[in-house]
Amino acid sequence: MHINGTPHRTVRLKPGEPHVIQIIDQLKLPWAFELVELRSVDEVALAIKDMWVRGAGCIGATAGYGMWLAALEANQEPDFHSAFQRRAEQLKRTRPTAVNLAYAVDRHLRLLQEHPEPSDFLPRAQALAEEIAEEDVQACRLIGEHGLHLIRALHENKPAGEPVNILTHCNAGWLAFVDHGSATAPIYAAHAAGIPVHVWVDETRPRNQGARLTAWELAQEEVPHTVIADNTGGHLMQHGLVDLVITGADRVTGQGDVANKIGTYLKALAARDNEVPFYVALPSSTMDWSMGDGLKEIPIEQRNGDEVACMEGQTASGTLETVRLFPSASPAANYAFDVTPARLVSGLITEYGIFETSPQQLRHLRKKTEGG
Amino acid sequence: MHINGTPHRTVRLKPGEPHVIQIIDQLKLPWAFELVELRSVDEVALAIKDMWVRGAGCIGATAGYGMWLAALEANQEPDFHSAFQRRAEQLKRTRPTAVNLAYAVDRHLRLLQEHPEPSDFLPRAQALAEEIAEEDVQACRLIGEHGLHLIRALHENKPAGEPVNILTHCNAGWLAFVDHGSATAPIYAAHAAGIPVHVWVDETRPRNQGARLTAWELAQEEVPHTVIADNTGGHLMQHGLVDLVITGADRVTGQGDVANKIGTYLKALAARDNEVPFYVALPSSTMDWSMGDGLKEIPIEQRNGDEVACMEGQTASGTLETVRLFPSASPAANYAFDVTPARLVSGLITEYGIFETSPQQLRHLRKKTEGG
Repeated sequence: MHINGTPHRTVRLKPGEPHVIQIIDQLKLPWAFELVELRSVDEVALAIKDMWVRGAGCIGATAGYGMWLAALEANQEPDFHSAFQRRAEQLKRTRPTAVNLAYAVDRHLRLLQEHPEPSDFLPRAQALAEEIAEEDVQACRLIGEHGLHLIRALHENKPAGEPVNILTHCNAGWLAFVDHGSATAPIYAAHAAGIPVHVWVDETRPRNQGARLTAWELAQEEVPHTVIADNTGGHLMQHGLVDLVITGADRVTGQGDVANKIGTYLKALAARDNEVPFYVALPSSTMDWSMGDGLKEIPIEQRNGDEVACMEGQTASGTLETVRLFPSASPAANYAFDVTPARLVSGLITEYGIFETSPQQLRHLRKKTEGG
Repeated sequence: MHINGTPHRTVRLKPGEPHVIQIIDQLKLPWAFELVELRSVDEVALAIKDMWVRGAGCIGATAGYGMWLAALEANQEPDFHSAFQRRAEQLKRTRPTAVNLAYAVDRHLRLLQEHPEPSDFLPRAQALAEEIAEEDVQACRLIGEHGLHLIRALHENKPAGEPVNILTHCNAGWLAFVDHGSATAPIYAAHAAGIPVHVWVDETRPRNQGARLTAWELAQEEVPHTVIADNTGGHLMQHGLVDLVITGADRVTGQGDVANKIGTYLKALAARDNEVPFYVALPSSTMDWSMGDGLKEIPIEQRNGDEVACMEGQTASGTLETVRLFPSASPAANYAFDVTPARLVSGLITEYGIFETSPQQLRHLRKKTEGG
């Protein structure tokens, strides 16, 4: 995607310097756009742990490139295998619940088992890192293509000249992946295809990923959009101002229940009450076939209440400042995710196509992911 | 209610100085508690217009006391009636859509028609101002008594020692009235009756009246409570952590549709989906019998997008600062209210008792309000 008109990915090997990883420091967004160079596994681990990079696909790809640096570093040590293993564990510890991170690290470990000779392994490690990132890009690109059909169909049913109004929650944008994003991929695809779209961006309290990241992405791509308080989506749907909801997902169970950023469930309820289609966009790697009932089985992270009580922003003089929103005499609770039951989900937009959350269609999706 | 252990009303005549109105400067809350003295109609008009006082009942009572000062001032002028009328119009202009304000002013104008002699009118004007405030207090007290039965019944069905968990949205607390509040009245009544309660306080973006005012009120009354992002209520209800929702209302139509702070509708949907009772507490003066279909007929105020984009809070050094949450390249929309259809409302808690939103029960309520 574009930043100030120049195409970028969230993570890549620096052109001409393939031992340097280039990332966007996402902590500085939306106030400053800064590329950061990572030259060691230590630096990669820090960047993941301190959330300079965030989002499933982006973390996975960064870890993949990190394993390429791990191979380079291990090659300078007497015992390649134990040095490589040590760095793999270091990377895995940075975000212990990030599925894509463990997946990227484990693929490199398996590759080393198949090609245990360092000189043989080294070029393969670099190629695998590129492959992991490229798979993410391609999955998101395909999500965009499949979702585009939904948006096109809605557009054809609207009066001429009226944009398709799409509501999204949190950031399932390209910043969370390597490129395109999941929920945003169909939006970018429609925009590129000349279909007029307008995006209602939920600010997504408490961490404001919608207002800080999704709105910034859309502004950079010149996609018309409007930031709203999370309270607003229901009212907009009651008044016909939303044609489609697309969110991302942190985990989707085998029966189609969707864990995503807190508040997603409320929007799904409003969509159902107003007959607005509610779609979830995800690479199929986000499916968790080991789980059934999402409400009972998916653990919901509780984070520090200070994320609710305090907020960062820019002062009139242009400096960044964190302010407290209410006195500390009142405690705050901070549930990070909720679960939207499959019955409220119109469909899953994946790289394999769009699947309803019926048992039959989910079996079909599972077969695809297993190469069937 | 209490502030730092001392009983207060939001507005009253200063003890021993009945020509001085004492209000709480609500703009300074929750960071500072300051009483302000209003000694002229000009000062009263400014206090209402600049929102030192806010909330239907509190504005009405302040305007009522303002009309008492108007009578005192008019008594110093050659033409009492035109001087009084001019001040009445001045007060009405401050918040043109505030029903209770116009009601308090008009009651004084009617009283003057009945008692046109200034020396006869003056003591009656003071008495009427006190009466308007007292009616507000009594209506809220009765709302508390009726709502207490609901909370008591829920408590009796819970395991011993477990609090009744009540979720509320925005501030329909005593700060919005003269005392007790509407949505909070049953909570304060239950707390006073020794029933353990715990309140989930929606922060209520964009203006954060929940986090700033409701949480502060509850802390002052030592009612256990927790501030949450507006996104959180659905998740809590899915997991049995909410026994009851009580909100206030800005307007309720004759068919029971409820206009209230934006986001109320989303909570009502979640309550219905999880079989949590959803009640709206209001003095019957909030009923608008001239309207039927709230979704079609109630106009929804759109406010400045800066209320979404910017937020005030306290810095680490203790100063208040307004920060911008996202760059101005992204526009923001700010719908202030939404309408919850009557079908999602379990009942209306009024000074006359609790009424379901069925046509029959609403007719019954209407008769009561008309003295039947």
